[in-house]
Amino acid sequence: MSLTVRSGAELIGTALLVAIVVGSGIMAEQLTQDSGVALLLNQLATILGLGTLIVVLMPISGAHFNPVVTLAFLVRGEISIRETVVFVLSQLLGGLAGTGLAHIMFGAELVELSTNNRLSLGTGVAEVVATAGLVATIVLLVSRSRESIIPLAVPAWIGTAYLFTSSTSFANPAVTVARMFTDSFSGISPPAALGFIGAQFIGLAVSLALIHPVTQTLKEPTHVR
Amino acid sequence: MSLTVRSGAELIGTALLVAIVVGSGIMAEQLTQDSGVALLLNQLATILGLGTLIVVLMPISGAHFNPVVTLAFLVRGEISIRETVVFVLSQLLGGLAGTGLAHIMFGAELVELSTNNRLSLGTGVAEVVATAGLVATIVLLVSRSRESIIPLAVPAWIGTAYLFTSSTSFANPAVTVARMFTDSFSGISPPAALGFIGAQFIGLAVSLALIHPVTQTLKEPTHVR
Amino acid sequence: MSLTVRSGAELIGTALLVAIVVGSGIMAEQLTQDSGVALLLNQLATILGLGTLIVVLMPISGAHFNPVVTLAFLVRGEISIRETVVFVLSQLLGGLAGTGLAHIMFGAELVELSTNNRLSLGTGVAEVVATAGLVATIVLLVSRSRESIIPLAVPAWIGTAYLFTSSTSFANPAVTVARMFTDSFSGISPPAALGFIGAQFIGLAVSLALIHPVTQTLKEPTHVR
Amino acid sequence: MSLTVRSGAELIGTALLVAIVVGSGIMAEQLTQDSGVALLLNQLATILGLGTLIVVLMPISGAHFNPVVTLAFLVRGEISIRETVVFVLSQLLGGLAGTGLAHIMFGAELVELSTNNRLSLGTGVAEVVATAGLVATIVLLVSRSRESIIPLAVPAWIGTAYLFTSSTSFANPAVTVARMFTDSFSGISPPAALGFIGAQFIGLAVSLALIHPVTQTLKEPTHVR
Repeated sequence: MSLTVRSGAELIGTALLVAIVVGSGIMAEQLTQDSGVALLLNQLATILGLGTLIVVLMPISGAHFNPVVTLAFLVRGEISIRETVVFVLSQLLGGLAGTGLAHIMFGAELVELSTNNRLSLGTGVAEVVATAGLVATIVLLVSRSRESIIPLAVPAWIGTAYLFTSSTSFANPAVTVARMFTDSFSGISPPAALGFIGAQFIGLAVSLALIHPVTQTLKEPTHVR
Repeated sequence: MSLTVRSGAELIGTALLVAIVVGSGIMAEQLTQDSGVALLLNQLATILGLGTLIVVLMPISGAHFNPVVTLAFLVRGEISIRETVVFVLSQLLGGLAGTGLAHIMFGAELVELSTNNRLSLGTGVAEVVATAGLVATIVLLVSRSRESIIPLAVPAWIGTAYLFTSSTSFANPAVTVARMFTDSFSGISPPAALGFIGAQFIGLAVSLALIHPVTQTLKEPTHVR
Repeated sequence: MSLTVRSGAELIGTALLVAIVVGSGIMAEQLTQDSGVALLLNQLATILGLGTLIVVLMPISGAHFNPVVTLAFLVRGEISIRETVVFVLSQLLGGLAGTGLAHIMFGAELVELSTNNRLSLGTGVAEVVATAGLVATIVLLVSRSRESIIPLAVPAWIGTAYLFTSSTSFANPAVTVARMFTDSFSGISPPAALGFIGAQFIGLAVSLALIHPVTQTLKEPTHVR
Repeated sequence: MSLTVRSGAELIGTALLVAIVVGSGIMAEQLTQDSGVALLLNQLATILGLGTLIVVLMPISGAHFNPVVTLAFLVRGEISIRETVVFVLSQLLGGLAGTGLAHIMFGAELVELSTNNRLSLGTGVAEVVATAGLVATIVLLVSRSRESIIPLAVPAWIGTAYLFTSSTSFANPAVTVARMFTDSFSGISPPAALGFIGAQFIGLAVSLALIHPVTQTLKEPTHVR
């Protein structure tokens, strides 16, 4: 597939992912006053949508939808710097389009600024954990050629991280940027977004360090032969 | 399989799909006053039922249960115009039977008219998005001979679209017609139904246009050889 | 496997299935006052448990846990009358043990009589629909040697039927008998149980008649060769 | 893989499992006043997380995360006593780290003591049932070389046991010890923990005895050849 088609898939995939996160957050806010039920609706929508997007778009672009994931593949030498730049820009642009699409569907202003300051030491640690788990899940499965299980495993990880981390697991810089522009259930204020993105990059580094003993072992037989 | 058996499967499948959507909506209304919980029950029933119907009936009729899906296969040249007409009529008839079956199970009048006007610019856009995503999911997976994942991927898409689109994702003209005849949780007033069906056809066109670059690439090797 | 081991698996499987249905019903009643949330907990417990029991015990006994399913296999000529009798007795005995086990876990009397009269024309029709769908799902998948999908498809059907039928889908005479002996969320009064069991046998007959054109077609090639 | 890498996987896996159980319990307590919704959030987080951890770490350490499971493999002669000791210590240490991690994420004290006395005759029986079912599921599937289904079957069992047993199914001595040190939704007082752990070992013995006729049959062909 050409880089145009592939980055188009990243743009559309990230746009739909953000529309799902933001849209289901607005829907939940409108329907229930129980925040536990609201988070559940938000989480279920996200993991079902993420699973569909991965299964449909993985054969086209790899279904990253996430600059941290794209960077992990760059570090592993599986994509070039040029592809990385185009992918990350597509993801950022797609994310913004996704917030707009959700707002159009629910009759809100196209762009708002969130005032939800989610940042604390605890949520920073939570973003490190959520992102490290996401990267480890993807890289360890890809290393063993188990790509076919990724459409189940990645949503399962995001689904648990939504509920057990105090940050509700953003774990994605493009989605974090897009969520600055909605003043609804899933929004995040710009200063908090900066902190979250920093923690996500730390999570990427922690993950690659932690799984290095395993990925190293998996590479060796190839080198020897 | 004969066209009679195949269209019988479409009729029964669409009837059960509508009985599931309408019946679980009535059940939810009776059991909870939290609309978030109600939508969750309605959504869960739909995706579990849709998955079962697809896995059981796909080997018989293809498990369309949806005129938009049948039209997509007509456009792709995989079924004839005659088959298309018979399928769509079976789906419409099945849908009406499904509403009646749900009403019998819950002791309601056999036929009611919904007064729920769901139509707005936002819900129209939502139906375009929901339908486009459904058609793209099916066509892209079929193009790669990944039919075996459809019983999971299609319910996953419908499940997320239930929760992130402002229309709660009808995405199916036969089901939309059938839902005009119930004045319960899942009903839709006839004028709104017309608007929804229009949006669903736009979604079909948008989807086929968007995925054309990919389906074209997938076809080429066959042409060359 | 010997008939003793196989019927032991049917007894333990049905006991656990009933303990799951009754136990999660008691748990739900204790935890929430929202009947929608209660039914959701009861349904989720049932489908997760049923899936596990089928995947673990299918290689031993076929994982019927249900006289109606055993009868369907008798009609298809896949088990003998003697096996059928032993299986059904094991299922009935197991079901009663399951109610007792749930009551022990939750500190209730070992045996109670339910006063919940669930029977009406609507719930009778619902039991026909739920049972017919269950039998059709199993027989159509077995006819195509798709046993491996049964641990997902059967719980999915039961899961949707829990939420869209007005009877919440008993669809199992052994489980219906066992649920007469608990005066909790999942109980059913003895007269209603009789009506439900009658409807379940009608559902079995309806199902075998409806799928006959398909199962007949699937058998033919074998006869010809 | 070296024992260091394998026990590292057990430590990290058990730490994340406990962080998931404890963290989602704190999240649920903060978000909802409906205990049914809270248990649902706690259960969903646990089964999605457990599934991910098993699928990612099973190729490295076997993904036990549970001294009772490790002991079952020792009894079956599949690991040595030395490996068993190192694994159990890693699980206990990991569990404690997991409680600490959850507390850091939610801004609680690093270590608390639970005052939640969960022990009764009923919950003791519940732990026997939950643990026996867990061990039987794992051993019966491993005996038939069906390891690939374990990432679905084990979370499904734990998911149902969360909802149908009066103890909400701890079924794991390392996790039980770790949950003594949190005074939140998922905590357990030290005396009750002792009782639960005793019941878990009884469950292990009951399970191995019950499935012996089956595992014995499965072994025989190997002996004969």
